[in-house]
This record gives sequence, C-alpha cells and structure tokens, in this order.
Amino acid sequence: LPADAAPSRVWVAALPPVGSTLELSADESHYLVRVCRVRPGARVDATDGCGRVAELVVRATGRVVAAEVNSLDAQPRRRCAWVCCGAPEGERADWLVEKLAELGVAVFQPVDCERGAWRATPARLERWRRLARAALRQSRQAWLLDVREPLPIERLSDILPAGGTRSVADPAGAAWITDFGEPCVIAVGPSGGLSGSEKDALRALEFRPIRLGDSRLRTETAALLLTGMWAVG
Amino acid sequence: LPADAAPSRVWVAALPPVGSTLELSADESHYLVRVCRVRPGARVDATDGCGRVAELVVRATGRVVAAEVNSLDAQPRRRCAWVCCGAPEGERADWLVEKLAELGVAVFQPVDCERGAWRATPARLERWRRLARAALRQSRQAWLLDVREPLPIERLSDILPAGGTRSVADPAGAAWITDFGEPCVIAVGPSGGLSGSEKDALRALEFRPIRLGDSRLRTETAALLLTGMWAVG
Repeated sequence: LPADAAPSRVWVAALPPVGSTLELSADESHYLVRVCRVRPGARVDATDGCGRVAELVVRATGRVVAAEVNSLDAQPRRRCAWVCCGAPEGERADWLVEKLAELGVAVFQPVDCERGAWRATPARLERWRRLARAALRQSRQAWLLDVREPLPIERLSDILPAGGTRSVADPAGAAWITDFGEPCVIAVGPSGGLSGSEKDALRALEFRPIRLGDSRLRTETAALLLTGMWAVG
Repeated sequence: LPADAAPSRVWVAALPPVGSTLELSADESHYLVRVCRVRPGARVDATDGCGRVAELVVRATGRVVAAEVNSLDAQPRRRCAWVCCGAPEGERADWLVEKLAELGVAVFQPVDCERGAWRATPARLERWRRLARAALRQSRQAWLLDVREPLPIERLSDILPAGGTRSVADPAGAAWITDFGEPCVIAVGPSGGLSGSEKDALRALEFRPIRLGDSRLRTETAALLLTGMWAVG
C-alpha cells in the first residue's frame, strides 16, 4: 500500500481471534491484489462492519487472499443516524446509499409512500449492500451501513429507535438546526413528495419539519443534505 | 402540466420581449412534449438562466415547440457561491455538477492540482453543461450554474471574486461554521488530496480550513457537504 495515501480498510464477514488465519472474499481479494498490489507480509486494516477492527498480515495472495489476524480492537459506535427515505427517481438511490455509508449512517430504511414506491429487487438490494461495503472500505469506517428492505410508511413507527431526535425534510419547515440528538432519525419523502396525511403521521411521531434552503431539492439531495448536517454537527 | 406537482421550468438561451414568439431547443421541446405532454395553449415557466423568468404560452408543439412570451421578470441573484474543486475519481463529477446546480451554485470551477488533474474533454464539459441545464429546469432556479474549464490551482487567485468568505475542506481544520459570507467560495482538493504547498497557497488566499465531521470523505462528498452548509445556512 502506498505510504502517503491512507490505505483503505477491507471488509470481512467475521473476524476470528488474534493468531487465526482467514480468507478474504473475492471482492476484497481483488481489491487488495489488483488495486493495492499487496504482497505476502503486507499489513492491512480490516473490519467486520460491526465495530471490530483488525490488523491483518497477508500470508498468501491470489484469487483468494489469506491473512492472519495480528490485532483486534472493538470500536463503539459513537453516533447513530437512521435515514428513512422515499423512492427517488431512476437509479439515484445508488449514489445516495454510497454517500450515506461514507458519512457513517447506521441504517438506510427505504420507505414506500403514497406517491412513490421502491422497486427494490433482490439484485438492487445486493447492489446497494455492495456499494455500502465499498464505501465502508474507502472511508475506513468500523460500522457498515445496514441496508434494509422497503417498508410501508405506516409501519415506520414499529421499527424506529426510541429517543433522540427525528427530522423530516420539508420546504414549509423551520430553518435548519444543529441540535441533532442521538439516535438521529431523518425522513425524506419520495420524488412525488409526502401526502398531507403522511406529513401528519410523521408529525405525530415527533418528526420536526426542517427546511433545507431555498432550492427545490430532489429526494436524494435532501436526504444527503440533512444527513450531512448531522454528520458535520 | 399536472396541477398538483409544481411544474419544472424550461431553459432558453435568450428571452425576447413580451409578445414575441420563440422556438425552444430540441431538448426542451422534447421535455415539454414527451415528458410534460403540453398542448398548444399551455402556460409554461421559462428562464434564460441569467435571472430572467418568463411565462410562455405554447403556440405550436412538435419536434420544436413555439411559444409566446406572456410576461417577463428579472430576479436578482440573492446569494452567490463558487465551488473550486479538484478532480474526483472516475465520473463522479457528473452528479456533483447536477447537485451544485440544484443547490443554486453560481460557478463550478474545476481545479487542476499536483495530485489530480481533470480530463475535461469538450464532450465532458458539454455533458456537465447539459446536466446543469436539466437541474436548473428541475429545481426551478433563475440562474444557471456556470461550468468553467479547468484551471491550474496556482491561477485561482486571478479569478476569485473579491470579499465574502473562502473555505476549504480540511480534516485538520476547524469545526463547521455557519457564517458563510457572500460571495461564498468553497475549495476542495482532488481525490489524492491537496499538497502541503497547495494548502499553504490557499491559506495565503484566506481560505479557512473547515473540518466536515469524522468520516474520510471523497472529493465530491466534501464539496457537496460544504456547499450544502452554505445552501441551508
């Protein structure tokens, strides 16, 4: 790995104890061998995406990289955000998923609304999860974005974490805020917008309507901006 | 145009006086006829992207839509941001350009740096300009994002607007700020990062280093977050 650029971190499904050897997935092996050009003996950062971070020593390269766990640490999740998002147009969720993972969001919950439903095929969910792993690697997180299956908006109340703060992007809302509590739950309507009764239901769930400047924003842009405000806060 | 969704705004290169008739471009005609399904007699919002906004009445549809200018107003630019950005990886500038246009940024200035140069072919610049026009339309701005040709970072000082505030994304910078002045100039390094001497040069130009949370962000994510902070502020 080049010494001047901070190397990325590989993702492994599970990290065995120090001294054990593990095999990396085809994706991660390809990344290490073809992109980073690691050789046996190289030290590589790894995470299981559930807070554990390891230093690995590469023992064998090839289509499958074998590596030994040299050290193992647990990193608590310091902050926690959920993004509950209506369907944007076209394939625009792809980059949203990447960006949310890059910002360290905990949960991406696609939400089916009156004016927009997701077409979340198994292939699409798998693509989002692959994008989330790639972003985990690139941004050196210890926690993987949990990409969930779509849920009807009426069922949001069943799954939301308790406490914290809840915010919904709304052009008619208050000016932006900096007091995001934890967990921070963010909701954004689909490209067709939230219906009146959906807005009422979110208000009953204590979502604060937040105005994101003067522009008319696309779903994915509003989601990213609101998440960005949490991330930099 | 559907009455419940706020209709988009078409872009025209120049707006003639009230009472004149104009022909829309192939792109805009296609959008009106195929996407919005307008008929003769329909009223349509238009802008020249330089602050003028008109109501048009469609006179003839087809491959080229003809329309008459019914009213014409000038909207001053209320806020002004420049984004001076190093090259991100791959085609990631495409969505950055779209998002900056959506947020109402005035100028997108690609910057060639020691650790990253743009490959801004004429085709790529034209694609960015088309994306900017599409975002103008969708977000109903009156001002079009000015997509400029790349410039070496040493030449930034020659072209920056005077006054206002200048900020550069920097993991070693201060916590985020809300006091963006106008014009607001934002700088972000390329995917390889800014070199030490480039950071010094920006500091000499009074760019304040701003830290954007704890994550290691890609160029385009940092640019969008910093711009988002300006947009919502």
